[in-house]
Amino acid sequence: MSTWGKYYRVTTYGESHCRSVGCIIDGCPPGMRLTEDDIQPQMTRRRPGQSALTTPRNEKDRVEIQSGTEFGVTLGTPIGVIVRNEDQRPKDYGGKTMDLYPRPSHADFTYLEKYGVKASSGGGRSSARETIGRVIAGTVAEKYLSLAHNVEIVAFVSSVGSEYLFPPTAKYPSPATNPAFLSLISKVTRQEVDSFVPVRCPDAAATARMTKVIEKFRDAQDSIGGTVTCVIRNCPIGLGEPCFDKLEAELAHAMLSIPATKGFEIGSGFGGCEVPGSVHNDPFIAAPVGETNERRKLTTKTNNSGGIQGGISNGQDIYFRVAFKPPATIGQAQQTATYDAEDGVLEAKGRHDPCVVPRAVPIVEAMAALVLIDALMAQNARESARSLLPPLKTTLPVKESGTSANPENVAEHLNGLR
Amino acid sequence: MSTWGKYYRVTTYGESHCRSVGCIIDGCPPGMRLTEDDIQPQMTRRRPGQSALTTPRNEKDRVEIQSGTEFGVTLGTPIGVIVRNEDQRPKDYGGKTMDLYPRPSHADFTYLEKYGVKASSGGGRSSARETIGRVIAGTVAEKYLSLAHNVEIVAFVSSVGSEYLFPPTAKYPSPATNPAFLSLISKVTRQEVDSFVPVRCPDAAATARMTKVIEKFRDAQDSIGGTVTCVIRNCPIGLGEPCFDKLEAELAHAMLSIPATKGFEIGSGFGGCEVPGSVHNDPFIAAPVGETNERRKLTTKTNNSGGIQGGISNGQDIYFRVAFKPPATIGQAQQTATYDAEDGVLEAKGRHDPCVVPRAVPIVEAMAALVLIDALMAQNARESARSLLPPLKTTLPVKESGTSANPENVAEHLNGLR
Amino acid sequence: MSTWGKYYRVTTYGESHCRSVGCIIDGCPPGMRLTEDDIQPQMTRRRPGQSALTTPRNEKDRVEIQSGTEFGVTLGTPIGVIVRNEDQRPKDYGGKTMDLYPRPSHADFTYLEKYGVKASSGGGRSSARETIGRVIAGTVAEKYLSLAHNVEIVAFVSSVGSEYLFPPTAKYPSPATNPAFLSLISKVTRQEVDSFVPVRCPDAAATARMTKVIEKFRDAQDSIGGTVTCVIRNCPIGLGEPCFDKLEAELAHAMLSIPATKGFEIGSGFGGCEVPGSVHNDPFIAAPVGETNERRKLTTKTNNSGGIQGGISNGQDIYFRVAFKPPATIGQAQQTATYDAEDGVLEAKGRHDPCVVPRAVPIVEAMAALVLIDALMAQNARESARSLLPPLKTTLPVKESGTSANPENVAEHLNGLR
Amino acid sequence: MSTWGKYYRVTTYGESHCRSVGCIIDGCPPGMRLTEDDIQPQMTRRRPGQSALTTPRNEKDRVEIQSGTEFGVTLGTPIGVIVRNEDQRPKDYGGKTMDLYPRPSHADFTYLEKYGVKASSGGGRSSARETIGRVIAGTVAEKYLSLAHNVEIVAFVSSVGSEYLFPPTAKYPSPATNPAFLSLISKVTRQEVDSFVPVRCPDAAATARMTKVIEKFRDAQDSIGGTVTCVIRNCPIGLGEPCFDKLEAELAHAMLSIPATKGFEIGSGFGGCEVPGSVHNDPFIAAPVGETNERRKLTTKTNNSGGIQGGISNGQDIYFRVAFKPPATIGQAQQTATYDAEDGVLEAKGRHDPCVVPRAVPIVEAMAALVLIDALMAQNARESARSLLPPLKTTLPVKESGTSANPENVAEHLNGLR
Repeated sequence: MSTWGKYYRVTTYGESHCRSVGCIIDGCPPGMRLTEDDIQPQMTRRRPGQSALTTPRNEKDRVEIQSGTEFGVTLGTPIGVIVRNEDQRPKDYGGKTMDLYPRPSHADFTYLEKYGVKASSGGGRSSARETIGRVIAGTVAEKYLSLAHNVEIVAFVSSVGSEYLFPPTAKYPSPATNPAFLSLISKVTRQEVDSFVPVRCPDAAATARMTKVIEKFRDAQDSIGGTVTCVIRNCPIGLGEPCFDKLEAELAHAMLSIPATKGFEIGSGFGGCEVPGSVHNDPFIAAPVGETNERRKLTTKTNNSGGIQGGISNGQDIYFRVAFKPPATIGQAQQTATYDAEDGVLEAKGRHDPCVVPRAVPIVEAMAALVLIDALMAQNARESARSLLPPLKTTLPVKESGTSANPENVAEHLNGLR
Repeated sequence: MSTWGKYYRVTTYGESHCRSVGCIIDGCPPGMRLTEDDIQPQMTRRRPGQSALTTPRNEKDRVEIQSGTEFGVTLGTPIGVIVRNEDQRPKDYGGKTMDLYPRPSHADFTYLEKYGVKASSGGGRSSARETIGRVIAGTVAEKYLSLAHNVEIVAFVSSVGSEYLFPPTAKYPSPATNPAFLSLISKVTRQEVDSFVPVRCPDAAATARMTKVIEKFRDAQDSIGGTVTCVIRNCPIGLGEPCFDKLEAELAHAMLSIPATKGFEIGSGFGGCEVPGSVHNDPFIAAPVGETNERRKLTTKTNNSGGIQGGISNGQDIYFRVAFKPPATIGQAQQTATYDAEDGVLEAKGRHDPCVVPRAVPIVEAMAALVLIDALMAQNARESARSLLPPLKTTLPVKESGTSANPENVAEHLNGLR
Repeated sequence: MSTWGKYYRVTTYGESHCRSVGCIIDGCPPGMRLTEDDIQPQMTRRRPGQSALTTPRNEKDRVEIQSGTEFGVTLGTPIGVIVRNEDQRPKDYGGKTMDLYPRPSHADFTYLEKYGVKASSGGGRSSARETIGRVIAGTVAEKYLSLAHNVEIVAFVSSVGSEYLFPPTAKYPSPATNPAFLSLISKVTRQEVDSFVPVRCPDAAATARMTKVIEKFRDAQDSIGGTVTCVIRNCPIGLGEPCFDKLEAELAHAMLSIPATKGFEIGSGFGGCEVPGSVHNDPFIAAPVGETNERRKLTTKTNNSGGIQGGISNGQDIYFRVAFKPPATIGQAQQTATYDAEDGVLEAKGRHDPCVVPRAVPIVEAMAALVLIDALMAQNARESARSLLPPLKTTLPVKESGTSANPENVAEHLNGLR
Repeated sequence: MSTWGKYYRVTTYGESHCRSVGCIIDGCPPGMRLTEDDIQPQMTRRRPGQSALTTPRNEKDRVEIQSGTEFGVTLGTPIGVIVRNEDQRPKDYGGKTMDLYPRPSHADFTYLEKYGVKASSGGGRSSARETIGRVIAGTVAEKYLSLAHNVEIVAFVSSVGSEYLFPPTAKYPSPATNPAFLSLISKVTRQEVDSFVPVRCPDAAATARMTKVIEKFRDAQDSIGGTVTCVIRNCPIGLGEPCFDKLEAELAHAMLSIPATKGFEIGSGFGGCEVPGSVHNDPFIAAPVGETNERRKLTTKTNNSGGIQGGISNGQDIYFRVAFKPPATIGQAQQTATYDAEDGVLEAKGRHDPCVVPRAVPIVEAMAALVLIDALMAQNARESARSLLPPLKTTLPVKESGTSANPENVAEHLNGLR
């Protein structure tokens, strides 16, 4: 199904070559200022054709809100948004080649097997164009998160091919333990990231190295993958459902649903498997004075957990990394087989992205926002419900003896927060 | 919420120290033979206390089916299953320490913040014991998948600390391109994996190296992480929903919902980001004669995609890798802070697992089965619906001119499979 | 949330005065011919302005499919459909009156309380215009049901005010026991119903009586309610989920979600409460020869159950009745209070429907189709899954002794259908 | 599926003749005192065997909480509850008769068709015993609703056969317009209702008449239906989702999911179709002083709407009526057919309820509580989200000219509540 979320629910529609693509956002809080101008910038950031490094197709992608707002304010009702497809039947696709060959590592073959019907662009819903609806909905979510909780979500390119912003080293098998990394994610902004367009890696030297890699593969009519790192700052404590819907599980689901992704890691990630527990554990410390309030006395000294413990946000920066494979569409001729299993050579027409990670940045941010707002509203529902219950008596001092089966000692164990 | 799946739906309940843990399985196909004997073996494989390498607590975990079967056959109605907790209030927990300190990198702090109520074991639902319900439901799902489609799901330990079964090399940045790896996953069995207990890495030399690592960390009262690789063989083509619920996205969600996981990669994974597209693309070839049937003419020559393209299974082996962090509970004293933000030293009592990956093997298998059966039933619903429609005419020859807007050329583009 | 269905899932959007209203249909079977022409007729049937009896506003409501089809065939991907709002700010609404007064028995007050924001048309999503998305999605569902199972869904007006097509009598407290009623629903067609436009009651005498009632209330600037009866023929056996999602429960939910509805009854309904069980029970008889097949040997002699037993369809005609209240918008002046609780008199401008039941007919049909297709696909998923299991041995003769705890007698109790 | 609710989610399991029946409650607010003693009374009220009028089977139905609470306080985690089946294989069922005949108007036939497997009690999940899980979950929900909002839910028998508490009359076609009815529902308590056991109709004369009806049908080995009316007092304003999940639609769904129900009506219901709109509309008036607060200035003078307008609660008493058919199990011999379509006579053994409505009372209350708590938590999530947004400026005076397209007049139309 093409629906994301339980509370802030997004349903998307649209292939590459139909009238329009778009989404319905159901559950957006009422009373928020919202116009197309709030959405268009991220829409533009995901567009191809922003530089010589990316695909020259020129899509316009103008957002049109259909419903759910009046006079620039959300009504709380479903927000329909559409973006017209300008090239409903581009010449690059179709014709003999596409009709005969399933493109290697594309979705043409699996879509045909799944549906028994082939869209004119092969795996139609599996195109980058499908992500437009996600970016729309994610951007609206992000506006709410920013207004209500000052949440900041920033993604950037952290590697292209084997060029890394923070390459794994003997000392730092995972960037999680590298102070330079933690410092960067604590303050990097979207503006800084964009100042390194087209690569979107917030470091001049790394950007230069990555640019060379991309140019090399572009010139060879080949393609290359890379990774995007994303940080979420000011996430409220307590988000994420235990068991199946842990916050990192929802993030993993969201990220692996983006076309061309192959991996996800949270906090220390795969590198963290090599770090001893005694180092990997994040000890608690008193929260800095500025951050102290009745609901927050503690923070962690390190952040190998990536801001999530037991599936629930702990108030620290949430950060994760997503792997994108090299784009499947390449200019080189490929030896492969037709739908009828006859050997042949497939040559793609036109020009294509040699590397999608720079364009993936706003999509990663959008999906992160969708995960967060849904977890936030789930917790809101719980918190509101709890807040109306008569308080439990929690004033008894915690005794050293702690015979917890004794009902008189209940308070020790319930530690009500109110 | 503690529910997984839309068609084969599992709801779990239970903390470490309540009367029982268990689950309700809703949507299990009717007419399948099923008794406790089908479930108990995987339950036993996930138990602690199987060797000196793992935790000495001795849980019995006897499965009791409450409903949904009669005379050893499923009725199609909800299957309630419970496993009693024998030690409802173990002495190792509780008392002064647990009441004062949130354990570092455990869920004690986040659970208290989330719920405002503290379970006697801290983050109660965040314990390994919660996975019992998953293994029950996954094992039932696996029986169905095996009976109906001969699906085989086998997981094994692929690294402990920095000891790998297939370490990344210059030649093979990802095991996906290593023929030895592909050969292993094409035939490894659960029996072979278990013959390397306690490590469950299906290679004698690697097991020896990993065992040493675990012993070292055990003796140091420390802990270490590792990775589990899982392969799914004979997966039907066409499983996985496009857009948000791609098959790899559901797998990522499922795996990151297992306690202590930090990462997930499918197919070539993070290593695949460094492989050129011209190498990474999986060309199509005619399927081997034995495998040919009307619905399957093609397979891929390589399998960097990991058996999934465009979010949909393509009939190849599906394989993925999951990262587990070092267990948070260690014997060493830890400098940390109390709930009231006072500095102090926390010392854990008892003995604990220095490495959880061997025990995680059946849990990974169970979650994989839950993902697969749900995707299968979703596709079943679609396929059944489609099969009752009048067939489209699909006999027209594909023309070279391919002016697809012409309605007479519909057949070129619709390629109906029937 | 504005979503209906789990398998064939519809999400609607749109208020009275925004750019467009519409829906996304997710889960429509692929490979079905579908164009706007399939949808427009029902859209037209629900339009106001078809006769002097109904509201003179002239809405055009032209359907535009945005996605999910190519060359007039469904792809299996989400079908986006929009209908533009032509009068985005009609003069009849707005101005002093609507800003000051919540209209009695409208949704103005409750929407403002719920959302804290007032749409320019009061309870915007609570308008009849919201039903456009339902009719679109229901009509597509109906096409599938007709093609795949020859399902026929026909609704008609069964009462207006106190004028009934089948008034309750001492002999027939419920029409369920009246042979004339059963005969009518066994064969009435949509064409016949429409031949009695504007009332849509398939009986000339009753239509005449009802027309008089409507004219009386129209002339008095008042309004009147009525009921719609709907029959579903050729419904496959076995649809409906036990427990919470019984087929009649889903139908009730669907019908009570239509604006202005106040009641639902299935089969014998409220009148059936007065019929003795010995009469009310529907005895089984052999199915007519023409209908016999391996899966259907039995039918029922009477049909007080209304085609559903234990929440599951039994192959008989499903029929139910829906109550619609008198429209809340009336021309008469009404003594009421402003938002600020000051007494006053509200006078509605313009002309309004004195009775909505004729227009409700296609909406009832659409919602019935949405319920049915979802239940069908749920059962398809189950049936497909079951059909792949190895058959149980079911050939043992049923013994009279019947000591069913004996495993050798399993076959007696399992009665596998294959 | 056997799951109810999206926020407060209940999953039930269990047939008549398995080890236990029960449920998992997921989403119960944390920090609420809860023990078995809170649940047992409603469990006892639904038990058969309370008087000579009802079935003599003696079920004990002792509730055992498995998880989700500690020291009598909810943790916020899933609450598993089981009730053991004492008679796992009663002699009344089984043997020759049940194996040969599908019981008329029972679920035996449809279950077999649906699942292809026959439970030993026929339509196992379709038994009254399945309602145990509902009553458990509903009673817990009700405790929360009472503690947090002082909600009161009281159901009672309003008719048995053709004996009514408030029979429809020329003056009052619907009890909604009868002051005596409105007065009764404004104050009737569960204690009063139970003082009229076994009939549970809160009126001595009506109870006497109804008792005679039940006795007559009992003596004739026949059965009779009836209706249950339910009132919800102190329901917060603003509950219910627009469009598909209107509050009355959820109530209808919930009620029609109870075994043996045939109809549902809210407020004026079917009778209201005969009332002119000018009488049926509920005018607004200032709320009584005691009830006035910043969020509530208005109430309605009459209550034909039954406390819900546009699908959203308006603060008035919510009341509805549910139709129950005569029980299908009767002592009389019935002419019917075997599974193999051979004519025959079915005679039921044992004694059975001639009328289920008195026992249905706590089930109706439980389902009403499940609907309400879910709607409440949905609204809580929305309200919490909205409350954190910066307030819109709403201070401009409302102008008479009302040119609402002018952005300066936004305030007129947004009427923010804060």
